[in-house]
Amino acid sequence: MKLDQKGQKEECGTSKLIFDRAVKVLPGGVSRNTIYRKPYPYYASSAKGSYIRDISGVNRVDFANNMASLIHGHSHPAIISGVSEQLQKGTAFTMGTEAEVAYAELLINRAPSFEKIRFMNSGSEAVMTMIKASRAYTGKPKIAKAEGAYHGTYDYAEISQTSSPKNWGDINQPNAVPVVQGTPKGILDDVVIYPFNDVERTLNILDQNADQIACVVIDPVPHRIGLFPATDSFIEAIYNWTRKNSALMVFDEVVSFRVNYSGAQQNYDHKPDLTAMAKIIGGGFPIGALAGKSEIMQVMDPRQTFLRHPQSGTFSANPVSSIAGRIAMEMFDEQAVLNLNALTMTARKQIEESIKIADVPISITGEGSMFRLHLLEKAPLYYREAYESKQVKDVLKELIDYLFIKENIIMVNTCSCMFATTLTQKEVDRLSEALLNGFKLIRPKLEQFNH
Amino acid sequence: MKLDQKGQKEECGTSKLIFDRAVKVLPGGVSRNTIYRKPYPYYASSAKGSYIRDISGVNRVDFANNMASLIHGHSHPAIISGVSEQLQKGTAFTMGTEAEVAYAELLINRAPSFEKIRFMNSGSEAVMTMIKASRAYTGKPKIAKAEGAYHGTYDYAEISQTSSPKNWGDINQPNAVPVVQGTPKGILDDVVIYPFNDVERTLNILDQNADQIACVVIDPVPHRIGLFPATDSFIEAIYNWTRKNSALMVFDEVVSFRVNYSGAQQNYDHKPDLTAMAKIIGGGFPIGALAGKSEIMQVMDPRQTFLRHPQSGTFSANPVSSIAGRIAMEMFDEQAVLNLNALTMTARKQIEESIKIADVPISITGEGSMFRLHLLEKAPLYYREAYESKQVKDVLKELIDYLFIKENIIMVNTCSCMFATTLTQKEVDRLSEALLNGFKLIRPKLEQFNH
Repeated sequence: MKLDQKGQKEECGTSKLIFDRAVKVLPGGVSRNTIYRKPYPYYASSAKGSYIRDISGVNRVDFANNMASLIHGHSHPAIISGVSEQLQKGTAFTMGTEAEVAYAELLINRAPSFEKIRFMNSGSEAVMTMIKASRAYTGKPKIAKAEGAYHGTYDYAEISQTSSPKNWGDINQPNAVPVVQGTPKGILDDVVIYPFNDVERTLNILDQNADQIACVVIDPVPHRIGLFPATDSFIEAIYNWTRKNSALMVFDEVVSFRVNYSGAQQNYDHKPDLTAMAKIIGGGFPIGALAGKSEIMQVMDPRQTFLRHPQSGTFSANPVSSIAGRIAMEMFDEQAVLNLNALTMTARKQIEESIKIADVPISITGEGSMFRLHLLEKAPLYYREAYESKQVKDVLKELIDYLFIKENIIMVNTCSCMFATTLTQKEVDRLSEALLNGFKLIRPKLEQFNH
Repeated sequence: MKLDQKGQKEECGTSKLIFDRAVKVLPGGVSRNTIYRKPYPYYASSAKGSYIRDISGVNRVDFANNMASLIHGHSHPAIISGVSEQLQKGTAFTMGTEAEVAYAELLINRAPSFEKIRFMNSGSEAVMTMIKASRAYTGKPKIAKAEGAYHGTYDYAEISQTSSPKNWGDINQPNAVPVVQGTPKGILDDVVIYPFNDVERTLNILDQNADQIACVVIDPVPHRIGLFPATDSFIEAIYNWTRKNSALMVFDEVVSFRVNYSGAQQNYDHKPDLTAMAKIIGGGFPIGALAGKSEIMQVMDPRQTFLRHPQSGTFSANPVSSIAGRIAMEMFDEQAVLNLNALTMTARKQIEESIKIADVPISITGEGSMFRLHLLEKAPLYYREAYESKQVKDVLKELIDYLFIKENIIMVNTCSCMFATTLTQKEVDRLSEALLNGFKLIRPKLEQFNH
C-alpha cells in the first residue's frame, strides 16, 4: 500500500513502531483477530463521540463502534461521569451492589420475554450460559445453530461459522464444520447445522434430531451470515417446532439487541425462551447477560435444593459495567432508537444513490442501526448466497482500506456499519460520498467478476 | 440468625429491601452464586483499601478481595487515576491501543515461561482458550484435570469440580462427574480425572489415555481442592509424562499467580507450556489472559496461512482493563510480593496460636498470600481428605457468618483469606482475635464430630 500524504506516512511509521513491539509479545501482534490489518493494525490514541484519533493524530469517523458495542460512540460524558463516581467507591466486591439490581430491573422492563436476567462478562459467556441452561432445563444434549452464524468462542456455538464451499456439504444436511483445529468429535456430533431462513430444509433437519435438541439458537439479524433479518415465517416455524418437541427457541441478540427498543425480537410475534446479550448493554465496558423465562432461569437459582446449573464469575455484574450499561440503555430510549434507525435508513438510501451513480452491482442488507454491503446485484437471502469468495473478499478489503486510509472512515471489515447516536447527517454525507469514490475505484474489478 | 445490635438490624432491613427487589429480576436474587448468603446477601456501598462499607454504613475488613482478584484492595488511587485518564480517551475501539502492548510487555517479563500472551475477558475465557489452543496445537481431543479443581465455567474445565463421596468412584479411576445437568456425554468422555498430588495413580490414569491427551491442566495451588500447593514431585512427574506423550502441561494460575512474582510456577523447576491468568492482573476490572510458548501461541496468529485457532473478543485487551492491570502489577513488584507473603505468614502464625488457645482441631493450608482453614486436626494433602461433609460445611458457615455479622470481617466462604497489600498488622491482629472468638463458638460442635 503506497501512501502519498506526509501525515499518513508519519502515522504508519508510528503505528508500525508499536506493532513491531506488539509482535514480540502478542501472537500476530494482536489480542483480537478482528483488529488485525495488513501490514499492521493502526493504534487508537483517543476518541470522542464518533471520531477516533490515532497515535499520529489522524482523526477518523467511526462507523464500527468497537464491533457494534458503543451505541453512544466514544467517551460519552454521562457514562464517564457515572463510572468516575463508581471508581471512588470500588469496582468489584465479594458482595452484591444495588447497581446490578437497578440495571437488571431496567433491562427486564425492556422486553416482554425477559422475566429474569443474569450478568456475565462477555457475549461468548452469555451464549455459553444460554446453551448450558438450555441443556440443564431440557436434559437434552444437542443444539441447533445456523450455518455461518457467529455466536462467540464457545466451541459448540462456533461450529460451521466459517463453512465454505469446500466443506459445507449438501444444503439439505449441512456439515458440522469445526472452526478450531482439534475440536473434539463429541462437539461436532452434538451440533445440528441448519440453513438460516430456509424453513423447509431446517424443519427436516431438526426433525431428524427431534428428541435430542435442547435449543435452536437463532441470531435474528446474523452479521456474519449476511446481516439480513430472520423472516417471520422462519421464526414462526422454529417457534412451533420447539413447542412440539420440548425444545427451547433461544436468541443470540449480542449484536441485534440494538435493532429495536426490545431487541430484534420486537419484530416477531413469537418471542424467544432465552436471550443472550452483550455489546451495547455494557456502555463500553465488558459485559454479557442472559435473560428469559423465570422457569428456565431458575436452573441457576442458588436457593434450589437441586441446583441444576451452578454458575458464577469473578467480575460478573460488577458495578462499573452495570452503571455504564444502565446509563447507556437509559439514554437509548424508544425515541433514541427510532432516531438512530431513521438516520441509518437515510444513510442506506444515500448509499443506494451512490451505488446507482457509480453503476456498480452492489446491494445492501441490514436492520435497524446496522447495514452491510454485498458485491452482489441483488441482496442475498441465504448464507450460501452471501458467502464471499477470496476474490470478492480481496475487493472488499481494498474498499475498506481505501476508506480507512484515504477517506478516514472506519467500517467493520465485513463492509458493515454499526451506527451510534453520536453520528449526524454530516457524517452520513461524508460516508455516502466516500463510498461513491470507493465504488468507482473498485468498479473495474467488479466488471471482471462478470456477475 | 438473630441480631441484637441496632445498627445491624437496620442494615439487614436495607439489604433485605434490595434483595426483595433483586429476587424479582435475578434468579435467586444474584448474578454470582458466590455472593449468595442465607437469608439474603449483603450489598456493598463503597470500599477503600481493605474496608467495605455496606449500604447501612457498617464497615467490614475485607479478606476476600472479590474472590482473590484485588491485590491492592479497593479504590487504589493510582488505579483510579490511570483509569480516569483513559475514560476521557475512550474505553474500547475497533483498533489496537498502546496500552495492551505495554501491558503485554510487562507480563511477558514477569515469568520465563511467558513468550507470548493474549488477553480475554475472564478466567473462564482464559482457561477455555488454553484448552482450545492445546487441542489445536496437539490435534488431540482429551484433557486431564484434577478431581475437585475449579477452573471456571467452560464445561470441559468444570467436570468433577464438585465430586462427592456419592459419585466420585474409585480413587484409582475417579469418575468424570458433571457439574451442570444435561452435560453432553461427549464432554464427559473427553475429560480424564486425576487425583491431585497423587503421582502414581495420576500417571496410571494418564497412561490409559496416553495418545489422546492434549493437555494436563494443573492449578498449582487449587483453592477448591484444599488450597495446598502441588508437590515438586507431582509437577516433575506431569512434566516428564507430557514430554514423553506429546502433550502439554498447562497451568491455571487465575488464582495462584499472586503467590510469587512469576506466579506459583516460580516454585517449580519445570515450567508450564501455557498459563491462564485473570483475577489480580485486571487491577479490579474484567480480564483474562493466556501466556506461553511462542510455538504454541502461534496457533492464534492471524498472519498464519492456516489459522488453527481463530480467536477474538469484543472487549479483549480493552485499554481500561489493560491500564488498571498494568498499574496494579507494576505496584506488585518483587518486594511487594515478599512483603505481602510475609504479612500473610504472620497471620497464619497468629491464627495457629488462636487454634492452640481455643484448643480446636483446625488446620491451615495455603501458599503465598492465601490460606484456608480446615476443620481437620492435620492439614489435608488430597482432595478426598479435604472434602467437607454437609455437617462440616454447616459449622464453617456458622463461623463465616459469625465473622461477617459479629466481627465485621469478610472471608471467602470456603473459610479462606486472600490478602491484599492494603492490609496491615492491625487488621491481622483483628482477624486472629476474631477467629479465636469464632473458634470458641464452634468448639462444642467440633467436639461432637469426634475427630
